[in-house]
Formats: sequence, structure tokens, C-alpha cells
Amino acid sequence: MKDLLQASCFILFLCLALSLRSHAKTLNPEKPCKRMVLYYHDILFNGTDLANATSAKITNDSALGSQFGMMVVFDDPMTKDGRLRSPPVARAQGFYFYDKKDTYNAWFAYTLVFNSTECKGTLNIMGADPLPEKTRDLSVVGGTGDFFMARGIVTFSTDEAQGDYYFRLKMDIKLYECYK
Amino acid sequence: MKDLLQASCFILFLCLALSLRSHAKTLNPEKPCKRMVLYYHDILFNGTDLANATSAKITNDSALGSQFGMMVVFDDPMTKDGRLRSPPVARAQGFYFYDKKDTYNAWFAYTLVFNSTECKGTLNIMGADPLPEKTRDLSVVGGTGDFFMARGIVTFSTDEAQGDYYFRLKMDIKLYECYK
Amino acid sequence: MKDLLQASCFILFLCLALSLRSHAKTLNPEKPCKRMVLYYHDILFNGTDLANATSAKITNDSALGSQFGMMVVFDDPMTKDGRLRSPPVARAQGFYFYDKKDTYNAWFAYTLVFNSTECKGTLNIMGADPLPEKTRDLSVVGGTGDFFMARGIVTFSTDEAQGDYYFRLKMDIKLYECYK
Repeated sequence: MKDLLQASCFILFLCLALSLRSHAKTLNPEKPCKRMVLYYHDILFNGTDLANATSAKITNDSALGSQFGMMVVFDDPMTKDGRLRSPPVARAQGFYFYDKKDTYNAWFAYTLVFNSTECKGTLNIMGADPLPEKTRDLSVVGGTGDFFMARGIVTFSTDEAQGDYYFRLKMDIKLYECYK
Repeated sequence: MKDLLQASCFILFLCLALSLRSHAKTLNPEKPCKRMVLYYHDILFNGTDLANATSAKITNDSALGSQFGMMVVFDDPMTKDGRLRSPPVARAQGFYFYDKKDTYNAWFAYTLVFNSTECKGTLNIMGADPLPEKTRDLSVVGGTGDFFMARGIVTFSTDEAQGDYYFRLKMDIKLYECYK
Repeated sequence: MKDLLQASCFILFLCLALSLRSHAKTLNPEKPCKRMVLYYHDILFNGTDLANATSAKITNDSALGSQFGMMVVFDDPMTKDGRLRSPPVARAQGFYFYDKKDTYNAWFAYTLVFNSTECKGTLNIMGADPLPEKTRDLSVVGGTGDFFMARGIVTFSTDEAQGDYYFRLKMDIKLYECYK
């Protein structure tokens, strides 16, 4: 009986210790609870192609140079493959701007809006996008609907860039907190 | 004694398994740990009523149309009921912009600042606000002070809209992570 | 044997209860899992000093006054001490704007980008910065790389302000969720 109590106390202590550590080092970057690869198509309005444009400048470059300060608002289609004409599975709604004097370095904040029979909900994302890097990691800071309370990482890589009129990003979305 | 050890090991294993799963599917959308319903009053400066205005455009519409690109900075009162003249219990400070060619679709990022004897702290919020939907969910991505490390969902619904001069949103704030 | 089973069941129940509470009130504001104090240097372009400037206005003040609506994009050095010329350990990339009619009240969203041999990764931060307060708390809403999935609080305090040309903030970064 004494042994039993001792063992019980020990186990209980362990349980408590483990529970109280709460957010310990247990998430594994290699093992997201959900993963999606989607392509982001940004067609910046160039003054002529109003029908196809999906984004527009809302501020001009600043006095610090042609890559500093331009802010763009977008409502861009997200597709499952790299083809612009594929049926969109979500919209990316938000903005980016450039913030470096000597190179293209962007910063994004946006929402992925899913609204189909298969999937309804949003993912909210923000972070830096230093274009010279091959891959760039941003944060999924929240989610709603089918992505209730989600968190994770989105890895950007540039899939194509045609001047500043069209560019396509591969977005590798990895969620590490899933509650639905 | 052997039974005891076996049982202990089994329980310990279960505890470990449960702890390591850490962020498992345990949050319930119906059971927030804290809930508040507040009303957001936005009085856009229309060129004449400087004293009452609480928000102002910082960019104009873009070339993509009258609902695309306008960005507004606000410092808006939050009240417990829908009356603009009720004593504010918090300020909403941040910005929104419109991002769709053919309808009103907004995107918000802002902070709810509480600074009373009852409540001190902030909630940081971001997400899409597609106005044609009856309710829209945004993410509470963090909190400070009395809302230390909070996360959750804010559900917007339009309570009143008078042109683009005044609109009121009902904000149903549901926190699912509470640490204070 | 009956005692053993009873004890086991009780312990198991406790473990389950503790695990299912998941995000309970266990984070301690006094005990971050990681802490860093860094200094943020913002040199706003004033029309002459292009070489040293690290930030620039992208919108002007609004009609609501000289402290309402000005938005600034920055790519600012972060140093370990308060000296501008110390070697930067990170860049702060993002934006702030002012949002109050009668005083300086700012709102920030930005990314701390670490890219050295010691540390690679980002921290994503947003929140209100009411300058009249001695200290202001913002939210760390996500992290990548060495800060994989981090969350926490950043406490701002103004270390120096020279008009609107140069200001320095002490940023006391406290992480409460660490996974690496």
C-alpha cells in the first residue's frame, strides 16, 4: 500500500509537471497537422488591363527609392497548381509593400479566404518576404471556420515574375496547431 | 508489485502521450474562456465635422474602382451597447481598407485598448471583413495586460451604416486561450 | 488489486483533466521561456540625409491633424545596446502610423529579421504604441526559424527622441511559447 501511494504520487507529480509546462518544446517542424500547397497570382494594374488586374498601388514609391514604400492592396486568386486560369480555391486579400533601399524586400499581411462547399474559413498571415532569399517563412497567426484557431508557417517561393505586372508565389502552408 | 509497475507504466505512458500531443483538438468553439460583446463606432471625416470624426482616409481609391484601395486610419470608441454616446469602455486603434472591384470588402488590423480601473490591457486583431456576409470572423492574435497572451475569434456584424460617414459594427469577442 | 485500480483510475482521470484543459492559466508573465532586450533605431528621411535614412513616409497627415494618419515604412537596425553605430543583430521591417487627434499615438506591425550565424529566423509583432505611456506592450504573434511558432510580448519604452527625425525604442522581447 505504501508502494502504491508512492508510485501514485510520483506519477501524479509527473503529470502535473508535464501539464504545467504547457507549451513545451513538442511541436515538430517536419510534422504539421495540416499542409496545403497553393499558388498566389498577383496581377498589378498597369493602367490598361482593368478586367484582369487583381491588385493596385495605393501609395507611390517614397523618396528613398524605387523599391521603398510602394504599397499594394490585392484580392488575388489562389490555385492548386501554377496556372493562372485554374479554378481558384481561395482568395488572398490584403496588402504588401516594399521596404528596402537597395533591393526588393516585401512585407505582407493578408487573409486566405476559403468559401467553397469543401472548405469554409480563413487563415490570417503576416511576415517579411525578402525576395532575394530562395524561400521565405511567414507566420499563420490565426484562423477561423474550418481553420478555427489555427497557427503555423507559410513558406513563400517565387514561381514566376514578369516585371512588376505579374508574379506568382508558391505558398507552402503548414499548420502546427489544428483544432478542427 | 509487478501489477503496480505495469499499471504505473501504462498511466505514465498515457500522461506523456497526452502531454506531447499538446495542441490537440480540444478547443470548443461553443465554449470560449471569455466573451464580450462590444460596439465599434466609426465616424469618417467628411470634410466638415472635425470635432466628432474618429477616422480619416489616408489613401484614395485606386485606379481599380471606388471600392478598391481606400485606406482609413481610426481611433474609434467601443461601447457596451449600440449607442454612440454611451461611455466608451475601450478604444479601437488601427486601420482598414477596401480591396474588391465589384463590392465592399474590407480588411482590418487593429488593437482594442482597455484602460479603465476595471480593465487594463489590449487585444490585437486582424482579418478580412467581407461586408456582404451577415457575420464575418476575424482572429484575435494576441493580448497584453489583463488579456495576457490571449487568442480567439471576433465575429463582426454590421449594426448600422449611414453611407460612408458612420457605421457601427457589433463585435462579438470570444477568447479561447486565457491565461489570466 | 482493487486499491491499485482505484488509484490508477483516479490518476488517469487527473491526467486527462489536466490535458484537456489544454490552454489553462499556466503561463507566468514573470517567467518567459526566452528574453532579449534590443534597441530599435528609426531615422526618418527628412529630405536631405538619404544615405542614413532607414524609414520614409508613405502617406501624409490626414485632414484630422498633424498626428493623425501619417504612415511610415521602415527597415531599421536593431542593436544590443543603445548606440546607433553598434553592429545590428537584426532588422526591423514593417510600418507604423499615428492615429490620434490630440497626441502622438502610434500603431506598429513589423517583423524582426535575424540573419546571422548565431541566429536565423523572424518574429512577427503587432500592436498599439501609445507614446504618452512610459511602457507599452505589443504582441509577438508568431515566429519562424530559430523562433519557430513563438508567441510573446514586446514592451516598448522610448529611449530617445529627436523631433521626428530620429527616435530610439528599447524593445524588451519576452517569449512565453518556445518550441526550439
